[in-house]
Amino acid sequence: MFENLRFSGKRPIYLQIKDYIKKMILAGLLQPGVKLPSTRELAEMLKVSRNSVISAYQYLEDDGFILMEKGRGAFVSFTEVKSEPGLVLTWEEMVTDYARLAAALDIEKKELKWEKGMISFKSIAPDPSLFGLEDFKKSFLQRFSLEGAKLLNYGYAKGYKQLMEYIMEYMKNKGLNPAGKDIMITNGFTEGFNLVLSALLHRGDRIVCENPTHNTAIKIMNLAGLRICGVKMREDGICVEELKKLLAGGGIKAGFLIPSYHNPTGLVMSPEKRVEILKIFTDYQVPIIEDGFNEELRFSGSHVAPLIALSGKGNGVIYIGSFSKILFPGLRIGWVIGDAKLISYLESVKRSANIHTSFPDQAILYEYLQNGYFERYLKKARKVYKERHDCAVRLARQYIPATRIWGEGGLHIFVELAGVNARTLLRECYKRNVLYMPGDIFYTNGGGENAFRLGISRVNLEQIETGIKVIGEVIEGLQ
Amino acid sequence: MFENLRFSGKRPIYLQIKDYIKKMILAGLLQPGVKLPSTRELAEMLKVSRNSVISAYQYLEDDGFILMEKGRGAFVSFTEVKSEPGLVLTWEEMVTDYARLAAALDIEKKELKWEKGMISFKSIAPDPSLFGLEDFKKSFLQRFSLEGAKLLNYGYAKGYKQLMEYIMEYMKNKGLNPAGKDIMITNGFTEGFNLVLSALLHRGDRIVCENPTHNTAIKIMNLAGLRICGVKMREDGICVEELKKLLAGGGIKAGFLIPSYHNPTGLVMSPEKRVEILKIFTDYQVPIIEDGFNEELRFSGSHVAPLIALSGKGNGVIYIGSFSKILFPGLRIGWVIGDAKLISYLESVKRSANIHTSFPDQAILYEYLQNGYFERYLKKARKVYKERHDCAVRLARQYIPATRIWGEGGLHIFVELAGVNARTLLRECYKRNVLYMPGDIFYTNGGGENAFRLGISRVNLEQIETGIKVIGEVIEGLQ
Repeated sequence: MFENLRFSGKRPIYLQIKDYIKKMILAGLLQPGVKLPSTRELAEMLKVSRNSVISAYQYLEDDGFILMEKGRGAFVSFTEVKSEPGLVLTWEEMVTDYARLAAALDIEKKELKWEKGMISFKSIAPDPSLFGLEDFKKSFLQRFSLEGAKLLNYGYAKGYKQLMEYIMEYMKNKGLNPAGKDIMITNGFTEGFNLVLSALLHRGDRIVCENPTHNTAIKIMNLAGLRICGVKMREDGICVEELKKLLAGGGIKAGFLIPSYHNPTGLVMSPEKRVEILKIFTDYQVPIIEDGFNEELRFSGSHVAPLIALSGKGNGVIYIGSFSKILFPGLRIGWVIGDAKLISYLESVKRSANIHTSFPDQAILYEYLQNGYFERYLKKARKVYKERHDCAVRLARQYIPATRIWGEGGLHIFVELAGVNARTLLRECYKRNVLYMPGDIFYTNGGGENAFRLGISRVNLEQIETGIKVIGEVIEGLQ
Repeated sequence: MFENLRFSGKRPIYLQIKDYIKKMILAGLLQPGVKLPSTRELAEMLKVSRNSVISAYQYLEDDGFILMEKGRGAFVSFTEVKSEPGLVLTWEEMVTDYARLAAALDIEKKELKWEKGMISFKSIAPDPSLFGLEDFKKSFLQRFSLEGAKLLNYGYAKGYKQLMEYIMEYMKNKGLNPAGKDIMITNGFTEGFNLVLSALLHRGDRIVCENPTHNTAIKIMNLAGLRICGVKMREDGICVEELKKLLAGGGIKAGFLIPSYHNPTGLVMSPEKRVEILKIFTDYQVPIIEDGFNEELRFSGSHVAPLIALSGKGNGVIYIGSFSKILFPGLRIGWVIGDAKLISYLESVKRSANIHTSFPDQAILYEYLQNGYFERYLKKARKVYKERHDCAVRLARQYIPATRIWGEGGLHIFVELAGVNARTLLRECYKRNVLYMPGDIFYTNGGGENAFRLGISRVNLEQIETGIKVIGEVIEGLQ
């Protein structure tokens, strides 16, 4: 039976021999007590070096599958014990409502899927061809040369110290007053938002947010059992009157806001409006969770300070940031900045969730940032994305009959159609290999049936043109 | 004021100039409308190349802090808007009971801390000097050469395909029957256990486990609001009679078991006992969550199949595995194997928690495993840890008056003292620079006052001898 062993790939020969013999033992083809061929015999049979077989036998003995007896040879020592019939459960009936809701709200499982050859405006993930892999490799090698294997051991729940310090400086350069504040590294925005909600709100609590808003945030708020109070968006952002009325009514425990390049509308809240919003939340003593989403992707205009910077020495804003939206999302690195006492609680919550975020990843990212590679990347990325964004806005205006096309920056535009259902349209576009994100998933409580989001990060100028023309044609056909 | 700029470190000069000018603008030292020095002037003043200043000004303009007017120069454009007095909240009064409990159960914040020069038996983290950094670097470079920048973009909630396949094979080599089962990658055991509990149990549900057991598991079960039913340990593992009685009483929703190198006792449950335990859980139709903790660290004896393997085609065992306990804990990679339908729910729960586990980390680990580096590492690590383990057992028997010293493998031994309080002893040992983990943290409902765990992974043979002698001397002094 050994002669059936075929070697493949680059896995070492002796390990392939080990794996094969283990499989035969586990399958009962080699019973306990059976003597294996001598290392010389097996080496000849398999046409490999005797050393390979000796190594394989050593590993099998280390793993407790065979026993080497001096002068007598190798014997199978593993006794397979099978329990029959085994525990069989009906999991569909056993999972919690929480798991069921997570599955029900999982758009990855429900929305139409991209297939090869399609033009997809669905994604707002960055374009990996812009990443500059060499800079990443350099950062990896430099950091490991400096710190060695200890980077691979356990780290700290709050994060890798140098990365935390770098990001605090980075945020100070956006106007953050660091007094009394602290930072924690998370597995991206998603985890940061989950941790903050678990430390701040109870099931049944009410939270206010823009409507529409980031669909993942809606999912997380729903899973946390919160009652979501969406406030409609005006031309210049969240409707102040409605917000005031809601807060005045009492019982709102927190606000969730995306002041810059709001997802999905792409709006940037003006500095004046930011100050006004801060004042309203201050009047009602309600904390703000600020999503720093794509803040780096401003294509024009003056720098606008985030709410946490505008609130100066105040401690009522919790800022969740992430480079992952534009840089290396595969790494899953984000951060939370807020009052130091709150961060200390969050640190314990994070430790209980998953000990800490990958330390090698944090260290490599730090090296990458410190070396100035991020600024260089951003310059290039802004240029490419701005071109695509401008192109999409221009063509959408030309080909798509819309009541409004939103978008001041970021990786997407948001289209409100005149009387066309976006899901009906999507089904037709899909037949013509064009895909986008239907607008209704961004609404907290119905609405958005006529809207959709066009992500521009994973399509080139030619695809943007083709895709938008298709959408326009399909709309014409529908009318 | 520009002359105060001092360059440091390896961060590019132009970015240091940019950072500095930003800081001055944010501090109000450069007011909106102020003209900056010409690039030539500033270059001379700072003794840097003019190109560095030009780049710095370009980045400042990109970031929206200055405006370049053709033929006129660069002007500060950022208008600082400060909101006064800002939102100030009393976070101590606002955080949830969940966050409070996480902080209260956070032993990192409460237990005595290691300081330089101390001999610490507290840790069971692996010894990074065994890691073989070159193999890790090679794996990084090989994987990125093959797959490039796409490894840095978003991945999939379930995990990196090749790693999942590799681990399924690896588990098949421990006897797993893969039919109807699936796998998901998590951020280590801790996250895996959290996700499984959230999908399987409600607050107030009862769960049965060994007593003592893994302290992090106790924390997680407490945070999930579960009622923990600890079953005492006998010489050969969990007390079968007590377990039967508990399950017969009804209302137990799941079991959590560590069959191999049980933490903290180090016991390995015999194959016969495993079959018996499986039968009991089958009789009462209660699922088992199996912690594959340190299963790789067997130092002697035959291979013992995990419960999930013994249950054959059954789907009632959920196996949580992790290499992180012995290899690269900084990467945070673990896995859950169980019924495919359950894994599908867990996939959605994982996506809502943090999208996915770091893809570069998963890809590097896959390459490392595939190349056979893990087996080579394990051979070396087993040898070193076995030596330390044997040494610790021998010396503990010699110097520590104990009613029992537990430990068949793994990275620790567990000592039950005869009438000495382990925390009193710890306080005295700490004065003599010796540290260990008090036993009470491993008990579900009081107990363990006279026990402690000695981790042997981060101490060499000399330190083990010195440390254990100190413990012995301190005990003598206390009596």
